[in-house]
Amino acid sequence: MANPVVPSSGVLTPLGLDAVRLDPGFWGDRRTLDQDVIIGHCLEWMDKLGWIGNFRSEPRRGREFADSEVYKLLEAMAWTGDRRFDELAATVVAAQEPDGYLNTRWSGDRYRDFEWGHELYCAGHLIQAGVARWRTAGEHPLTDAVRLAADQVCRRFMEGHEVCGHPEIEMALVELYRLTGAERYLEMARRFVERRGRPALADIELGRAYFQDDVPVRRAAAFGGHAVRAMYLACGAVDVAVETRDAELLAAIEAQWEHTVARRTHLTGGMGSRHTGESFGEDFELPPDRAYAETCAGIGSVMLAHRLLLATGRSRYADQAERTLYNLVAASPALDGRSFFYANPLHVRTPGRVAEDVSPRAESASRAPWFQVSCCPTNLARTFASLPAYVATATPGGIQIHHPTACEISHDGLTVRVETLYPWSGSVAVRVLEAPADPRHVSLRLPPWAAGAPHPGDTVSRGPEDLTPVRRGSALVFGERVWAPGEVVAAELPMEARWVRPDPRVDAVRGCVAVERGPLVYCAESPRDEVRLAEVVVDLSRPPAERTGDELRSGAAGDAPAHDGPPHDGVVRVEVRASRRPEGDNGRPYAEAGDTPREEELTLRLVPYHRWGNHGPATMRVWLPAG
Amino acid sequence: MANPVVPSSGVLTPLGLDAVRLDPGFWGDRRTLDQDVIIGHCLEWMDKLGWIGNFRSEPRRGREFADSEVYKLLEAMAWTGDRRFDELAATVVAAQEPDGYLNTRWSGDRYRDFEWGHELYCAGHLIQAGVARWRTAGEHPLTDAVRLAADQVCRRFMEGHEVCGHPEIEMALVELYRLTGAERYLEMARRFVERRGRPALADIELGRAYFQDDVPVRRAAAFGGHAVRAMYLACGAVDVAVETRDAELLAAIEAQWEHTVARRTHLTGGMGSRHTGESFGEDFELPPDRAYAETCAGIGSVMLAHRLLLATGRSRYADQAERTLYNLVAASPALDGRSFFYANPLHVRTPGRVAEDVSPRAESASRAPWFQVSCCPTNLARTFASLPAYVATATPGGIQIHHPTACEISHDGLTVRVETLYPWSGSVAVRVLEAPADPRHVSLRLPPWAAGAPHPGDTVSRGPEDLTPVRRGSALVFGERVWAPGEVVAAELPMEARWVRPDPRVDAVRGCVAVERGPLVYCAESPRDEVRLAEVVVDLSRPPAERTGDELRSGAAGDAPAHDGPPHDGVVRVEVRASRRPEGDNGRPYAEAGDTPREEELTLRLVPYHRWGNHGPATMRVWLPAG
Repeated sequence: MANPVVPSSGVLTPLGLDAVRLDPGFWGDRRTLDQDVIIGHCLEWMDKLGWIGNFRSEPRRGREFADSEVYKLLEAMAWTGDRRFDELAATVVAAQEPDGYLNTRWSGDRYRDFEWGHELYCAGHLIQAGVARWRTAGEHPLTDAVRLAADQVCRRFMEGHEVCGHPEIEMALVELYRLTGAERYLEMARRFVERRGRPALADIELGRAYFQDDVPVRRAAAFGGHAVRAMYLACGAVDVAVETRDAELLAAIEAQWEHTVARRTHLTGGMGSRHTGESFGEDFELPPDRAYAETCAGIGSVMLAHRLLLATGRSRYADQAERTLYNLVAASPALDGRSFFYANPLHVRTPGRVAEDVSPRAESASRAPWFQVSCCPTNLARTFASLPAYVATATPGGIQIHHPTACEISHDGLTVRVETLYPWSGSVAVRVLEAPADPRHVSLRLPPWAAGAPHPGDTVSRGPEDLTPVRRGSALVFGERVWAPGEVVAAELPMEARWVRPDPRVDAVRGCVAVERGPLVYCAESPRDEVRLAEVVVDLSRPPAERTGDELRSGAAGDAPAHDGPPHDGVVRVEVRASRRPEGDNGRPYAEAGDTPREEELTLRLVPYHRWGNHGPATMRVWLPAG
Repeated sequence: MANPVVPSSGVLTPLGLDAVRLDPGFWGDRRTLDQDVIIGHCLEWMDKLGWIGNFRSEPRRGREFADSEVYKLLEAMAWTGDRRFDELAATVVAAQEPDGYLNTRWSGDRYRDFEWGHELYCAGHLIQAGVARWRTAGEHPLTDAVRLAADQVCRRFMEGHEVCGHPEIEMALVELYRLTGAERYLEMARRFVERRGRPALADIELGRAYFQDDVPVRRAAAFGGHAVRAMYLACGAVDVAVETRDAELLAAIEAQWEHTVARRTHLTGGMGSRHTGESFGEDFELPPDRAYAETCAGIGSVMLAHRLLLATGRSRYADQAERTLYNLVAASPALDGRSFFYANPLHVRTPGRVAEDVSPRAESASRAPWFQVSCCPTNLARTFASLPAYVATATPGGIQIHHPTACEISHDGLTVRVETLYPWSGSVAVRVLEAPADPRHVSLRLPPWAAGAPHPGDTVSRGPEDLTPVRRGSALVFGERVWAPGEVVAAELPMEARWVRPDPRVDAVRGCVAVERGPLVYCAESPRDEVRLAEVVVDLSRPPAERTGDELRSGAAGDAPAHDGPPHDGVVRVEVRASRRPEGDNGRPYAEAGDTPREEELTLRLVPYHRWGNHGPATMRVWLPAG
């Protein structure tokens, strides 16, 4: 099955790229952008910077983990069947040492620095690339190299107490076990997970919590430390738990996930509150301006949620994956696919600079085409390439659509086309193209904002009587019945823009509200800070008003055209009433209350957060002070 | 004159340690603690860790800038006449190379790394130690070594474009010029200031702004980057400006100071909002929880304000020095002088751990006896040692008391004793002990909270008619008149506790208030978080109520004794009415408004911020959500 995660057991069975084909739409357009632009963009930059040349024994360039970017790109190429795969894979394979070791930075000086060397991290990405190739197009010189590399890791590390400062190898080894059935890979992964936090690594300045080595995995209360490391380790732990039937370990990760989502996760799904250590903060430490919310941590969070969904069937995991995909992962690349956010703050006070070269750091307020630590672009490349794998799952009785997006799904004789403009529209139609003779169900996840209070139009059926869906838990279920080609079932999710308030313990956004519509978080964006966002206070007495892209484009709303974008992005903007309260300077930012400032009424236009920053330097805020 | 800063011109002339003698009281007790405990504590740790042994060619230990800690301790010993000075100084002097170069880390490998080497930074602290010795007790082998070292720096760096990644040498060289009259030291300092920002250093990951090399000093709009570096550079720039009569440069620093105090400075006077790069943030980026507010940045801010006060006579600089001394510098050491805060946040959610050994990092929630980067303890040692230098200044017509604290001041035939329990009491009496035959004035700075709106008892005089002070600008002026020994003049500053509100642009504390009383910022401290500070909302309808230490000690208030402390610390606590609103967990920290939580009324006890963290692990907050 062409899916990055194929557990041997679990409540839900994944459907792979061979079962789900994306049509043009929010998700399909991103996969197309990946195939047409992002993959090539990454290839060009890594060629130019010598990261590919490293495999040809050219003078070593880039950071110690640069190899992993090449592997993530190979993985992206494998998922998309990119014709450049063979040449790049051949370059990589040629650099492998006879015993299977493969690392362009540490060759000849292996395994001296587990804290920062990233050797097993790189090996993990190599393995994932090989697995992707194997599952999409069968064995290949790269898959041979991957087995050799994994065997070398097992020989070297099966005994002892060493782990890598950056988790990643764990989930890679489990997947290789799933593919090959070789138990040693699973056992090696299990040991890497169990060794952590005893501790196994040195007490660095950032503390052992940085690499999740402060406490054993199954005893942690929440995710902490470096957010990407935390997500990757949790993915590996879930994989190990599922394959070893370790219910305690799975329950531990679920509890950590619950704690983290309830107290340490930004509205966008972003994880990691601190630039220092690129790390989680304390509970309720969720600053919008200094949110790090690294793109890769968001991708890791989606990977983890997907694993937990498969293992447990709880739609809560798909809810969070949706939030993160639409509001964090989708926000990182520019609309043209040629520059990327590394950090994804929810508030930008000062318009950023447009970076045109390699950024030496994780900028917050502007995208860059490449980074010295460039994990995010290639991570997006492989994630967009494998998006079909996240759409739907199967059980013996039918299929479950977790993410409504235009696509065709085939499983076990049932083929349906999902027709929707989601997330712009809440209408989701499922058209049966091919059907087996036995009864099946088709279900659609109801996001929390649609499944909460009863809502007019919440669960409208447009089909004949017996096609009316049944609400079961957090899903709308059609069937179980025998389907006929041509039949259409439909649901209408309520898409009105709504206010969202923070828990009072989130100190950093006290007194503010945000706006969401469907799965999208909105934000105010002000190019060159022309509308001074520091002085705006929104009026909660009137609900947010919607303006569709069509209205905007037609000029009917007396406005400039909406942001351009892929043709199927019928962007919906939102407007709220607000006032501007200009503040003077009184010499200190703290004072007794002064004169009430003059107020000006204004209409504040909000755009989907994932689209901000595509029109030059701007200020931005998701959380809006409320009067 | 025994003062760290002796400009050749300026509106006010400093008074040195030879003119101001501290009596027991808030300031005097801290100087005594320094002499009795802190200096010895630093000496012990540096001996134990080998930082002193480095000068004896023992295997090199500690960070690349460890020498500077020894120099700061020598400076502290010089200001206090510590008998251990000679031995330590001899150890240092013996390590000097024949041409004057002295650095235990880079000997034999000089000047290879201007970004991180800290060689000129260390040389600057060596020079300051020598200047302190020279001004308090005359020439010494160390002062010879200092001239030799400074001459070596001038020979090596007078031409070229190099600067040190950490400013410090600039102000040291100017002071050596002031002491010796050797113009080359001033010229070298001037060139170091002017070279910066052209740029002179490499573009590191944190950016050149980290070491103020992004823009020339006189063109910056605000202080930015690493806060300690910014303060030290600004000190050097003011010193250069004063000695070269460079009005443009002085005006530039004044403008940067105004911008920074108005938009980038915490209520405690703390500077530096970010842990990343230990740096200033953007305007109004002032998070209470992640405030870095390094102790050394506070000390640097006091040093800068002192220089600007001398140059311009503006009491605004003394106001800020007072805020910073009472609420940041005084907060760093534990009451016993044996452990220190490095970072000084205004909100601590999770009780810290008690550190008993060298801390590898700048903890936020607990003091440590020593740090791997241990700049703060020795900086406190030299600052407390030189506190008398900050109390008062002179002009030809009299003396100006900027900081009321129990002390005796002698200048030009006039000797007065300042009698006060400030900051606990607002009564300040000035008793004349000795007087010249010609008329003089004595003035007392009125802090903004005392000088603002007319206030009953604001300017009460207790003396005969002609001793009634006159308000002139932001000072109360007694005289100008011929004084007689035994005469007493007095003022009463209004000390009622008051609410303070943040500028609405300080997003991080929107909806909160703080409490101040006199110069002190107060905070709620909850040992082991017994009063759950995340759930408390204060009631602004009733003013904060005061409880003095006497009341608390006598048990009259039905309460446990106040925090213990030096005998002259008649600690005043403050109580505010509040309610507790317990919050549940709803699975996400953002939601539609739920049930109104049950409320419990409670009295929230506040303590002066500078005393927090002396009673074991605790949560703490300065900014209190208001209902």
